Amino acid sequence: MRITMLTLFPEYFDSFRTTSIIKRALERELVTFETVNFRDYTLDKHNKVDDTPCGGGQGMLLSVQPIADCLKAIRTPGSLVVMMTPQGRTFNQQTAHEFADISHLIILCGHYEGFDERIRSYVDMEVSLGDFVLTGGEAAAVVIADAVMRLLPGVILEDSHADDSFENGLLEYPQYTRPIEFEGKTVPEVLMSGHHANIRKWRLEQSLRRTMEKRPDLLENRTFTKEEQKLMKQIQETDEE
Amino acid sequence: MRITMLTLFPEYFDSFRTTSIIKRALERELVTFETVNFRDYTLDKHNKVDDTPCGGGQGMLLSVQPIADCLKAIRTPGSLVVMMTPQGRTFNQQTAHEFADISHLIILCGHYEGFDERIRSYVDMEVSLGDFVLTGGEAAAVVIADAVMRLLPGVILEDSHADDSFENGLLEYPQYTRPIEFEGKTVPEVLMSGHHANIRKWRLEQSLRRTMEKRPDLLENRTFTKEEQKLMKQIQETDEE
Repeated sequence: MRITMLTLFPEYFDSFRTTSIIKRALERELVTFETVNFRDYTLDKHNKVDDTPCGGGQGMLLSVQPIADCLKAIRTPGSLVVMMTPQGRTFNQQTAHEFADISHLIILCGHYEGFDERIRSYVDMEVSLGDFVLTGGEAAAVVIADAVMRLLPGVILEDSHADDSFENGLLEYPQYTRPIEFEGKTVPEVLMSGHHANIRKWRLEQSLRRTMEKRPDLLENRTFTKEEQKLMKQIQETDEE
Repeated sequence: MRITMLTLFPEYFDSFRTTSIIKRALERELVTFETVNFRDYTLDKHNKVDDTPCGGGQGMLLSVQPIADCLKAIRTPGSLVVMMTPQGRTFNQQTAHEFADISHLIILCGHYEGFDERIRSYVDMEVSLGDFVLTGGEAAAVVIADAVMRLLPGVILEDSHADDSFENGLLEYPQYTRPIEFEGKTVPEVLMSGHHANIRKWRLEQSLRRTMEKRPDLLENRTFTKEEQKLMKQIQETDEE
């Protein structure tokens, strides 16, 4: 997979490239990650990429020409051009999986007050990280690159994914590590029992309980196994007592 | 305001600190931004901060001791300790405003497979950026710091906030800048008219139309002005024709 960031601030991605799991993935060439500064494509003689809004208003907008011409130059067969904007489709784990299957993902990061509206017609998809506003799209683009890259083969242990929150439609169960006791707080006994079937059942029950409490919306369109249905009924009955 | 990042990768925040608007805010001392490596608080003789999960399973978990002791050392009166986790309350523009009012925001970034469950009892709030999984909390913490810092007085033009998406409960209206025509796509005439009242009305109508189309959920709990109600009725009637 190849990921290209279109940005006015290529140096913003330096830390992302050189830290921890992502650093190792790049060193092992499991993914290609590059930045392109769309300022290099402006036809403005002063190298400008932004201008004031037509009709008045605060701030500066990114102009259509540099981005349109940059995209024409860097698109490849099979590439997907994604624009970061609060108005886009909200990014989630399913989007991360979809993007991980694309051979060349191009992410356009805005900055300043916003984009000239016509830029939207040059991209394939608009994506939002959530209902909030940032100084630029770079911070959001890093999050997307991280979520996508960790799904690529070899980047992290494959088995680690299965229990992630959202992967099976549930929040992750509580996890504990040594020491067994810390400031009066202890690890649940079942986890120390060595009884694998009981541990698996306890974890599933905890995942269900947590999701029912914190994120009942995740359960709305989910299909449940017979075991899960039985456990949920037990949880509801216990809570009513 | 002071923001402290608790992280195993302090260098991750270098790019954030040294780019664009955030760089200027730090130079002008509008906000204090610091990182603390909680590895410095481990009592483990090999400097370890993680261990395998009790009861078996993939990956490594962050241990409770280094983080609990680190928090005891760096909490201040009035500080709020926020833990980044997919299981937390979803961050949005309202959360950004709440955080911007806090004198000392401490953000705990996880890494590896997850946290020892007992760590939750040492934090004040759990926050999620969205329904996806990252290699660590750092990328999400940068997003939150960015969204919060841009709201602090003097960081960006105050007037710029009012028209942001979500600030008035609506998506932002389309914006255009020069040239008037690019590859056959033109700026709407009203924006070139110089007629301020018409421009304002067109923008409000566009904001409403966009929000109705793309994010009707944002309208559910919103109170509308008389002018907005009238415009929405017109939009619905036009669309039915």
